[in-house]
Parts: sequence; C-alpha cells; structure tokens
Amino acid sequence: MIYQLYYWPGIQGRGEFVRLALEEAGAEYLDVAKDSGGEEQAVRKLQALLNDPRIPRPAFAVPALKAGELVIAQTANILMFLGAHHGLAPTDEAGRLWTHQLQLTVADWVVEIHDTHHPLGPTEYYQDQKQEARKRTASFLKRRLPKFMDYFEKVLKQNPSGDQFLVGSTLTYPDLSLFQIIEGLRYAFPRNQSRIEPNYPKVVALHERVLKRPHIAAYLASGRRIPFNEEGLFRHYPELDG
Amino acid sequence: MIYQLYYWPGIQGRGEFVRLALEEAGAEYLDVAKDSGGEEQAVRKLQALLNDPRIPRPAFAVPALKAGELVIAQTANILMFLGAHHGLAPTDEAGRLWTHQLQLTVADWVVEIHDTHHPLGPTEYYQDQKQEARKRTASFLKRRLPKFMDYFEKVLKQNPSGDQFLVGSTLTYPDLSLFQIIEGLRYAFPRNQSRIEPNYPKVVALHERVLKRPHIAAYLASGRRIPFNEEGLFRHYPELDG
Repeated sequence: MIYQLYYWPGIQGRGEFVRLALEEAGAEYLDVAKDSGGEEQAVRKLQALLNDPRIPRPAFAVPALKAGELVIAQTANILMFLGAHHGLAPTDEAGRLWTHQLQLTVADWVVEIHDTHHPLGPTEYYQDQKQEARKRTASFLKRRLPKFMDYFEKVLKQNPSGDQFLVGSTLTYPDLSLFQIIEGLRYAFPRNQSRIEPNYPKVVALHERVLKRPHIAAYLASGRRIPFNEEGLFRHYPELDG
Repeated sequence: MIYQLYYWPGIQGRGEFVRLALEEAGAEYLDVAKDSGGEEQAVRKLQALLNDPRIPRPAFAVPALKAGELVIAQTANILMFLGAHHGLAPTDEAGRLWTHQLQLTVADWVVEIHDTHHPLGPTEYYQDQKQEARKRTASFLKRRLPKFMDYFEKVLKQNPSGDQFLVGSTLTYPDLSLFQIIEGLRYAFPRNQSRIEPNYPKVVALHERVLKRPHIAAYLASGRRIPFNEEGLFRHYPELDG
C-alpha cells in the first residue's frame, strides 16, 4: 500500500512528525505537499479532503494520512497507527499506552512551542503580537522548557531497559518526535539551546542516535526535507531567543 | 479491580473528563482528590506519584489512573484505555482510531479554552495577563470556537449511523467529553453560548442525551461533582464573555 500524506506545503509543521515515522519505516508515501501541480494544487487537495461533505469521518485539520480506505488525522493518532503497523511501538497494551503517553506529552510541548510566537492565538499574525510573544517566550524558556527537558531526561534515565531509547531497548515513534523537537528548538532558540543542552546529555545522545539511523540520515541528506522557516511551528526570531 | 484516579483537588480540570468515563462505565474508583486526609494529603500523594524516582514509566502531569500495575497518564490516553475496557469505544481498528481522533480534537479545543485566560502561559496568574486574555478570548470566541462547534456539528451530521452520537450508534468516550465542553463553555461564557448554541442543534441535543444517561444523571445529582470555579480550566470572568 502507498500512503498519502496530506499536509500544508512549504512548512515542516506537524506533518514532519509523520514524515519522520514514514521515512524511518521505509514506507512508500505520496506527499501531497510536494504535488506535481505545485503548492496551489496541494492546497486545493487539502481543502477538498477537509471539506468533502460525503466523508463519514471528516478531519478537523491536517496532517491526515490516507491508508487505503482509512483517513486518519491528528498527529499522535497517525503515529500510533504507523507504530502498530511498522514495528515502531511495542505490541503489548501497557507498552502501547506508555508509548502513546510520551507522544501526547510531546504534543503538549509542541503547542507550547507554537504559542511562544502566537500567544494571542493562531488567527493573528506574529507581527501583531510581538510584545506578548516576548513575554510568553521568556516564561516558556525559563519555566516550561526545562520542565519538559527534565522530564524526557528522566524517562531515559528511569527506563529499566537502559537509556538508549524512551521505550524499551529499540526505537519507537516518540524517539523520532523528540529528535524533531530538539532539531526545532536548536533552529528557533540557538543561544538558549546551546546554554541548556549540557544539562540533558541523554536527550542530546538520543537526538544523535536518531540522526544516524540509516533511513533518517538518508532523508536528511536527500534534499526532500523542507527547511525550517518563519511560517512553521519552530520559528527563529532572534528577539525571542533568551 | 478498583481504579485510583490521581488529580488535583478542588477543580474539575482535565480530571473531570476521566471521571465522566469512570462514572458512565459504573467503574469503581478511589478519587485521590477526595482523599480522607484532605487536600494537603491529596497533593502529597500526587507529588509522590509524579516524583517517585523508582517508577519506570513516570507521568509528566496528572490526571493519571492506576489500574492494577499500570499507571496511565494523559487524558486522551486514559480514555482510550477505559474505552477499550468498558465498551466506550468500537473494537475494530478503524473505529478505535476515529474515536481517538475525535478525543484528540477535543484535547486541542481544551488547550485553546485554557489559553483564553492564560495566553501568557500556565506559570503566570490571570491577574497578570488580563489585557492579553481579553484579546485572546475575543479571537477565540470569534474565530476558533465556531470552527470547533461547526466541526462537531458536522461530525454528527455526517455520521452514517445517524446524528445521535459522534461514533456509530452508541455512546463512546468523546461524547462524554463533548458534553463536558458544553457544560464548561456555558459556565465560562454564558452570554456567548446562549447566542451561538441555536446554530448547533445536534451538539446541543447530544449534550442533553448525555445529561440523561442514568449514571451521568446520578453522578451530577450526587454532590460528588466539584463545582466549576475560577481555579479550573473553564473560568467565568464576565469581562471576557463576548
């Protein structure tokens, strides 16, 4: 089966968490964001999917993954599906729930990262909320970011199977997402990251470990990965970098 | 098995989504928030759970549910577990994913509702972000709230099994959560809700339908439900109600 990934063109955004899982799995997929008809055509295809009145299970937003007859939305939900079908999650119930719990914590973190540049909400431009973004980012970098970093360092430390991966002794989908978070934070807040990362050696080592996975390394070298930019989730505004 | 629910005392918060599922399921549970040792003792128990260095699978935050040996955190994850064990979700993969997708969309909505009174983040007081809260709430009520309401109305309308429930023809866990969202919005923004709800007859009817479920009605009449207040997720600040 060839999957179809529906996500906005031009940004990594939440779609990138899905792409990393598809790439690691070596799954075949058509990326609608890279539609041969260009970005306008890609957006038309997304809107057709989101607004189709005949779809019995409509998505609120993208990313969405078409897998045969299924249309699955919500990043963490898509990853749970891919995890089960491509060996990126344990098969026992306790392990599946724990893996998903970690992913949902990543999802909460993603919202807080997004809100650093959009504290007044997703419908206003950054330029219209710069002052508020400065306040929110200061609070995020001081209080919330260390809380999330501490947590994932602790999960690695307390993993009874060792500190190589978040769950058990093999890679699962939240490892890929944690890699992406570190990539994004380094892009958005380079000064702050270089200051705090020495406190989180296990998280940093996990990022390195994922970076070297053959499929991930090939993807990053391929030129297919959309560069970070100031339209996406992780944005580099020097005035916000603590 | 008697479950143990860990959540902050004194507020409904995210714990209430779990309580509603436990109540509907008729499951036996100990509510740590109602610990016989009082609120201080409850908080000590939460902190012991969150900070225990011997726990192999630590939670980032509560709610958390102890189910025998398992400690499950993240509201949507707990609900997925309860849904599978208490007939509050379909058993086929496509149905399980769709149910969870709806719950994750509710979770996104919950974050945006919380952010109306905390646009500068969870670590600052409302009193220190009143002006920003006013801006964020105006944008939420005008743009985001109708988008979420439209979506759930559409899900009910497009459900091939009829408009009585979100998934298929029986109650599932996101129905309970949508009920709670409507309850909370009516508490927080009574003027705005009374103006917009006539546009969403199916969502309003679903709320009524859940309200009349025998177990839910008994729970609401029992006095065990913590009242809404200005420490929780849904807060009534008249200056924010459009």
